[in-house]
Amino acid sequence: MSTYRYPKRQELFRRAAGVIPGGIYGHFSPATLVPPSAYPFFTARAEGARFWDVDGNTFIDYMCAYGPMVMGYGAPHVEEAAEAQRRLADCTTGAAPVMVDLAELLVDMMPAADWAFFAKNGADVVNFAIMIARDATGRDKIVMIEGAYHGTTGWMQGPGHHGVIEADQHQVIRIPWNDVPAFEAVLDRHHGDVAAFISTPYHIPAFADSQMPAEGYWEKIQALCRRHNVVLIVDDIRHGFRLDMAGSSAYFGFSPDLTCLGNAMANGYPISALVGCEALKSTAARVFHTGSYWFQAVPMAAAKANLVKMGEINAPQVMLTRGALLFDAMVNIATTYGYDLKVSGVPSMPYLRIADDESLMLHQDWCAEGTRRGAYFTPHHNWFISAAHTDADIQQTLEIVDEAFKAIKGKNLPIEC
Amino acid sequence: MSTYRYPKRQELFRRAAGVIPGGIYGHFSPATLVPPSAYPFFTARAEGARFWDVDGNTFIDYMCAYGPMVMGYGAPHVEEAAEAQRRLADCTTGAAPVMVDLAELLVDMMPAADWAFFAKNGADVVNFAIMIARDATGRDKIVMIEGAYHGTTGWMQGPGHHGVIEADQHQVIRIPWNDVPAFEAVLDRHHGDVAAFISTPYHIPAFADSQMPAEGYWEKIQALCRRHNVVLIVDDIRHGFRLDMAGSSAYFGFSPDLTCLGNAMANGYPISALVGCEALKSTAARVFHTGSYWFQAVPMAAAKANLVKMGEINAPQVMLTRGALLFDAMVNIATTYGYDLKVSGVPSMPYLRIADDESLMLHQDWCAEGTRRGAYFTPHHNWFISAAHTDADIQQTLEIVDEAFKAIKGKNLPIEC
Repeated sequence: MSTYRYPKRQELFRRAAGVIPGGIYGHFSPATLVPPSAYPFFTARAEGARFWDVDGNTFIDYMCAYGPMVMGYGAPHVEEAAEAQRRLADCTTGAAPVMVDLAELLVDMMPAADWAFFAKNGADVVNFAIMIARDATGRDKIVMIEGAYHGTTGWMQGPGHHGVIEADQHQVIRIPWNDVPAFEAVLDRHHGDVAAFISTPYHIPAFADSQMPAEGYWEKIQALCRRHNVVLIVDDIRHGFRLDMAGSSAYFGFSPDLTCLGNAMANGYPISALVGCEALKSTAARVFHTGSYWFQAVPMAAAKANLVKMGEINAPQVMLTRGALLFDAMVNIATTYGYDLKVSGVPSMPYLRIADDESLMLHQDWCAEGTRRGAYFTPHHNWFISAAHTDADIQQTLEIVDEAFKAIKGKNLPIEC
Repeated sequence: MSTYRYPKRQELFRRAAGVIPGGIYGHFSPATLVPPSAYPFFTARAEGARFWDVDGNTFIDYMCAYGPMVMGYGAPHVEEAAEAQRRLADCTTGAAPVMVDLAELLVDMMPAADWAFFAKNGADVVNFAIMIARDATGRDKIVMIEGAYHGTTGWMQGPGHHGVIEADQHQVIRIPWNDVPAFEAVLDRHHGDVAAFISTPYHIPAFADSQMPAEGYWEKIQALCRRHNVVLIVDDIRHGFRLDMAGSSAYFGFSPDLTCLGNAMANGYPISALVGCEALKSTAARVFHTGSYWFQAVPMAAAKANLVKMGEINAPQVMLTRGALLFDAMVNIATTYGYDLKVSGVPSMPYLRIADDESLMLHQDWCAEGTRRGAYFTPHHNWFISAAHTDADIQQTLEIVDEAFKAIKGKNLPIEC
């Protein structure tokens, strides 16, 4: 603790604030990291499951780049494949032969994939899925879950957000998670107008516990979609390849029409994918959707190598098992200090919350104490674990967890900012 | 010519068509390349101003990855900077220190930049600019130019495109290029409702000649925007750093509020940027817009190194001069065969068209004959030249141009597909 200093971070953030709106923006903004003094903001170096900030402080990483890092920073199987492709070609005038290999791989791996399409952002493929659903059905309306995150395009963000106009919301209907009757009511009220139902495989609201599907939920949603010719879209961008290599719909036992993939595909190389059923392939071919760098070959080569390797070791199972070990132990440590640490979602990407304090101040304080001690704990977003977190990382994390609980137990007020 | 064979491409495209909608999609789709037999589809290797297809055929590249390649494939100054950053960190949990350097560089380089924001796609920053304009003005409507391309988000594509719904167009007003009275009429009719005017620096419609701004056009547009508190957005994604390192608005002598940048920034590494004036910085900070890979460090390091190097050699001037040399010579060769080759736009990204044939069949045929002979000529999109096209490349291209005119002169019908 006495070694946690950050003069370079402070100076760098001061410079950043001069030339970048908010200094650091989007989901990387330090605004929800309280107190900001506990958090590193900038990464100078990363390797395996750890990163170093600009002041030389090191952190065991439980955010994993907010999802993309799944096999360790600088994982050799990814970097070697990327480098081999880079020596040939990356962003050129033609498509990459490896694009075809990668599409074939996804079609082989995933029951819900008869074809694949590649882009950069998660939102690129969510928007493409919506366009396909509208073109295929001739309908306009989209049903989504209240509080779900699918990206930052106007319609995806709820009403009232800065830059979002009322018109962005006109074709979007929000229903609560796990509420089949609510979906039935929407289908009745907007009979013949609903193009698509879109949802993550289980619900991950911000600032709140993750919520798993109720028994039979997906079966009923799928049946309703089929009956009403509504395109069933799974946004598997955050969950994908952290539950099952065959896709999170395989984990929960249902068959979406379109599946959005991204974050964990290429261990940090920028790529997203839409995979879908044969019936929508010709529609997908006629909807024009593209971007300057979507045919970049290196991320495709990285994704191919990464998905093959993840399949070989069953990386989702590794993360689920290792996560369960870690988070169960955390809960036990919490108990010894008299705290009720709630862990929701699956152990490869759980949401944590100290349940004894509705204000979340106590939880924020505990996360900050952990981060100051070298394990990056985020307070209001789900965490991530990777297949590269070692037994030693987990052991060290548990020691930090113990110290962090001890620290918050020893005081009544949040630490000084 | 006798050596132009492509059995591997045919086989690869057959596989692609099995697992990817349309085989190759978006702006890389071979659909507008007629006859497709002349075009390579896939790139196996690229270096300098050339690429090789999967059958070993080589092409001098006049598409430059549709814009991103500006200093030659594999340019050492870019690859060395990228590799140095890659050894440290790429996509991690923190922002990259180089993000701050890059923002400072853009602010130094461009009079229209008091701050910078980074994303992946061009459309990411166009959409961000629109959100900022709406939040800053409290208005909804966007004025854009008929036939302009800003990406493939619903509102950007004109009505009638697959997947685009009527509601996408409700807040978008299209006016002809170079038509100041039309803009005045819109400002009258929608008084107090127009959030933004967005346009490329000069107009580059598809399948048609590029159109430069009329004398005084930008001055008048800027004055109208100021008078009506309309945010003036320049989409400089395709033009940027091909006209002037200070931005295309500096080339044409006006001052936009927001400028969208991308393609040529990082020589193919995936990054886009929005830069803007001080007055909109706090609005930009409160509009939430983000993506999984937007903080990726390697493309930022590549952009920084590339922009510095481009500034050192004045790369836009190199491309404009070299392009003028090449395209003037092409026009002369055309004349000797009795053809009127029209070159519009600037010589670093000109649009070419044989004017003797309204159907464009003759022009398609000529482009195909050039491509078959090893110079990639696209028929319906503007071309690009890079600062890496050598005198030898240009000499060889002119020989190919001569042969291609000879070939089309020798027959009356389009070549066999």
